[in-house]
Amino acid sequence: MTVAGSPSSSATELSRTETLSLVSLSGASLAILANTFHGDGEPLIASLALSLVAFSLCYAMIRWLGPTFIKAGFRGRDLSKVNGGEIPECMGAVCAAVYLITVIIFIPFPFYKDIVAATSGGGNRDVVVEIQIQHANEGRFLHRFPHNKLASYLGAIISLQTIALLGIGDDLFDIRWRHKWWIPGLASIPLLVVYFVDFDVTSIVIPVQLQPYLGELFDLGFLYYVYMACVAMFCPQSINMFAGINGIEVSQCIVVSLLIAFNDCLYLFTPYPHPATDSHLFSLYLLLPWIGVSCALLYHNWYPAKVFVGDTYCYFSGMVFAVVGILGHFSKTLGLLLIPQLFNFLYSCPQIFGLIPCPRHRLPKFNARTGLMEPSVTPWSPDRQPHPLVGQVLLFLHRLRLLKATTDEKGLFVETSNLTLLNLWLVWRGPLKENRLAFEVTMLQLSVGLFGLFVRHKLALLIFKEDNWGSTGQH
Amino acid sequence: MTVAGSPSSSATELSRTETLSLVSLSGASLAILANTFHGDGEPLIASLALSLVAFSLCYAMIRWLGPTFIKAGFRGRDLSKVNGGEIPECMGAVCAAVYLITVIIFIPFPFYKDIVAATSGGGNRDVVVEIQIQHANEGRFLHRFPHNKLASYLGAIISLQTIALLGIGDDLFDIRWRHKWWIPGLASIPLLVVYFVDFDVTSIVIPVQLQPYLGELFDLGFLYYVYMACVAMFCPQSINMFAGINGIEVSQCIVVSLLIAFNDCLYLFTPYPHPATDSHLFSLYLLLPWIGVSCALLYHNWYPAKVFVGDTYCYFSGMVFAVVGILGHFSKTLGLLLIPQLFNFLYSCPQIFGLIPCPRHRLPKFNARTGLMEPSVTPWSPDRQPHPLVGQVLLFLHRLRLLKATTDEKGLFVETSNLTLLNLWLVWRGPLKENRLAFEVTMLQLSVGLFGLFVRHKLALLIFKEDNWGSTGQH
Repeated sequence: MTVAGSPSSSATELSRTETLSLVSLSGASLAILANTFHGDGEPLIASLALSLVAFSLCYAMIRWLGPTFIKAGFRGRDLSKVNGGEIPECMGAVCAAVYLITVIIFIPFPFYKDIVAATSGGGNRDVVVEIQIQHANEGRFLHRFPHNKLASYLGAIISLQTIALLGIGDDLFDIRWRHKWWIPGLASIPLLVVYFVDFDVTSIVIPVQLQPYLGELFDLGFLYYVYMACVAMFCPQSINMFAGINGIEVSQCIVVSLLIAFNDCLYLFTPYPHPATDSHLFSLYLLLPWIGVSCALLYHNWYPAKVFVGDTYCYFSGMVFAVVGILGHFSKTLGLLLIPQLFNFLYSCPQIFGLIPCPRHRLPKFNARTGLMEPSVTPWSPDRQPHPLVGQVLLFLHRLRLLKATTDEKGLFVETSNLTLLNLWLVWRGPLKENRLAFEVTMLQLSVGLFGLFVRHKLALLIFKEDNWGSTGQH
Repeated sequence: MTVAGSPSSSATELSRTETLSLVSLSGASLAILANTFHGDGEPLIASLALSLVAFSLCYAMIRWLGPTFIKAGFRGRDLSKVNGGEIPECMGAVCAAVYLITVIIFIPFPFYKDIVAATSGGGNRDVVVEIQIQHANEGRFLHRFPHNKLASYLGAIISLQTIALLGIGDDLFDIRWRHKWWIPGLASIPLLVVYFVDFDVTSIVIPVQLQPYLGELFDLGFLYYVYMACVAMFCPQSINMFAGINGIEVSQCIVVSLLIAFNDCLYLFTPYPHPATDSHLFSLYLLLPWIGVSCALLYHNWYPAKVFVGDTYCYFSGMVFAVVGILGHFSKTLGLLLIPQLFNFLYSCPQIFGLIPCPRHRLPKFNARTGLMEPSVTPWSPDRQPHPLVGQVLLFLHRLRLLKATTDEKGLFVETSNLTLLNLWLVWRGPLKENRLAFEVTMLQLSVGLFGLFVRHKLALLIFKEDNWGSTGQH
C-alpha cells in the first residue's frame, strides 16, 4: 500500500524532509508570534501563527500516536480497500486536544492591549476597596476590561470541551442515540448564557414583502434560544452523518471553515469600524486553529487513509461551526453553508425514523472487482415489503432519479439504495473511485457554499432592506 | 464476595429500595430547585439541591455503566483481595461527567438575580447601538451584569474539563510522566487570566516580626502567577500519589472538600457583607456538587471495592481544590488542608528522583495468609546497595521510625519500606486490615485539616496583624 514518496501506514516516524519542514514552519510561526508583542499584540496575526504551530504539532502527533492508539483499542479496518490492514481510529481526538491547547494558550492575546492598558490599574485590590466603591459606576480598570468578550471566548471553549468529552465517550462506548442526542444542547448552555447577557437579540428581520403584516422585526423571544440550542445539536450530528469514505469528513469541514473565514474577512476589510467586526474576528480566532489541525488530519486521512477520524472529529467540528455561528451572530448564514449536510439529514429521515429499515452503516459499497464505489442498498424480501404508501413514494423518487429502486417482475421491491447524499451522488454519476467521489462531493460543498454566500450578500437585498456588510443595518 | 444487604459486584441493577430512595431524593431536590425561582433565585440552595440530584444520578450511573466500562477495557483486578475478580476501572470519569453537567446547568443560577434585573434592558442590540455608544461609560445593562463573576465561573469549568480530558487520556494511554506533568499548568491558564483581570493581587502579607525589614506587604508580581500554576500542578498529582487502597482516594477528597466547605461557611455567617463572601460562595458552588458525586463513588469504592476510581478522579479532584483555592483566594489555607498530601509528596521524593529505586506501584502489600496489609518494600541485593550517604540517611530515618529498613549481619541493606504515607502508617501501627487503614488515614487527614484551620484562624494572629474572617483585613 506504500505510495512512492509518501510514508506507509506502518511508518510512525517523520521523514527528514517532514521534520525539517515542520520545525522551520513552527520556528517561523513562533518568531511571528513573539513579534506581535512589539505592537498592539495584533491578535489576528498571533492566531494565524499559532494555527501554523498547531498544524505542525498535530501533523507530528498523528504520526507518533498511531501505535499508541492501536494498542489502546482505537483501531479499525478500512472496508473499502482490497487488503485493508488495521489503522488507528479516533484521530480526531488528537486534533481536538491540539486545538484546545492552542485556543487556551491564545486566551491572553486578544486581551493583550487591554492588559497592557490596565497594568497601571493593578495592585492590591483589597487595599483599594474603598476607592473602588466610589469609582464603581465610573468604571475603573475592572470595567475597562472587556469581560464580556472574555466570557464569550471562555463559553466557546467550554462548549467545545464538552463536545470533545462526548465524542471520546462515544468512540469508546458507542453511546446509544437516545443517551447522547441532547448532550450538544447541554454543551450550548454556556453559549446561550453568554449570548443572553451580551446580546439578547431575539428578533428576526421580516422580509420586505411581509412587513405590512408582521412589522419590521419579529421577536422570537425564548424560542430564539431553543433555535440556537437546535443549531448546536444539529451541526455536530449532521456532519457525523455525512461521512463514510476516506477524507470526506475532514474535507467538508475544511471547506465550510474556509467559507466562514472568507465571510468573516469580508467584514474585516470594511473601511470603518463595523458593529459586526468584533464578532467576525472572534469567529476567525476560533476557526484558524481548526483549519490548521484539520489540514494536518486531512493529509493522513485522504485516500488511501492512514488513520480514521472517529466521531470525535465530526462532533467537534460541528460544534466549532455552531459556536462561531451563534456567538458571531450568523447562524442563518451558517445554515446556507451547511445545505449539503441539511439535505443529507432530511434525505436520511425515512431511514432514521424507521419508515425504511436502516442498517448500522450506510456508507457506499466497495466493489473489490472494479475497485470502484457503488451505492449501498437496503434489501427487501418478498415477505417484508415497504408499506404501500411508502412504496409509491419510493417509486416516485426513483422516477425523479432521487433513489435507485430495483423491482422484480411482480413489482415487488428487491432493493433500494440507502438514503445518503454519497449514495445519491453515485446513483447520479455511476460507480466512482473513492478519492474521486470524495473530491466531487467536496467540490459540491464548495459550490453550494459559495452560492449560499452570494445569496446571503446579494440576493438577500431583494427581500430584506439592506445587507449588514458595508452598511450599518441589521444582521 | 457478596456481603449481606449490599449488592454483589456483578449486580448492575439498582435494588428496589435504592431506586425508591434515589427517585424520592431527586424529586425532593428538584422541588427545592423549582422553589428557588420564587425568591431571588437563592443560588446556594439551588446548588445544594443540584448536588443531591448529582449524587443520585452518579450513584445510578456508576451501577449501570459497570459492564460497559468492563467491555470497553476499563477493568482491573484488586491485588489486595484473596479472590479478586475484575471490576470496572476509571469510574471517576462518570463522577467528572455528572459533575460537569451539574455545574454547567448551574451556570444561570448565580446570575438569576442579575438576569431578572436586566430583562427590561434587553431587546435588539443593533437597533440601540447609537444609544449604547453614548451610554457606554455610564454603563447600561451590559455593565450591570457581573461579567467578571461569569468569567471566573467559566474559567473554572474550562480548567476542570481540561483536567478531565487529561485524566481520561492517562487512563487510556498511560501517558508518560514527561508528557503530562505540565498539562495541569496549561489547564490553569484560564484561571490565571481571570485572576489577572479580576484581582491581580500579587502581594503577600509579611509576618509582623519581619515587617521592620520587608515592609507590610511584599509584591511577588509575576512570580505569584508561577506560584498559582504550581498549585494547579501540585494538587492533582499529590492526590494521585496518595492512593493505592480501597476508598482512600475518595475519602481524602471528601474530607478536604468538607473542610474547605466548612471554612467557606465561616465567611457566610459573618454579620455584614464581607469582601471575601463572594469568593467563598463561588467556592461552595463548585464544591457541593463534587461532594455529592464523590459520596456516590465512595459508596461503591469503599472496602470491598466494587469499582476503581482511576487517575481521572484524583486529577479532577485535585483540580477542583486548586480552582477554588486560586479563585477563592485561599491557596495558602488550601495548603494547610493538604498537609498529608504534601508530606507524602516530599517523603516520596527520594524514590521519584531515583535516589532509591521506585517500583511501578508502591501500594501496601496484601498478606493473603493474615488478610492484613503490610508495608511494601524495595528489595536491595548485595551487589546493588544504596549510595553510602543515602544508606546513612536511610538508617537515620529507620532510627527515627520514619522508615523500616532491614539489614543483614554484614550491615548490607536487604529491604527498605517504600516511601509513602500509607506504608509509613503501617510501619507505625503494624499490619492492618485494608478498611481499617483507610479509615485511620482518613481520620488523620481530618485531624490535620481541622488543626490547620485552627492555626489559620487563631494562631495566625500571632504573626499576622489580623485574620480576614470577622474583620475587613487582608487575606
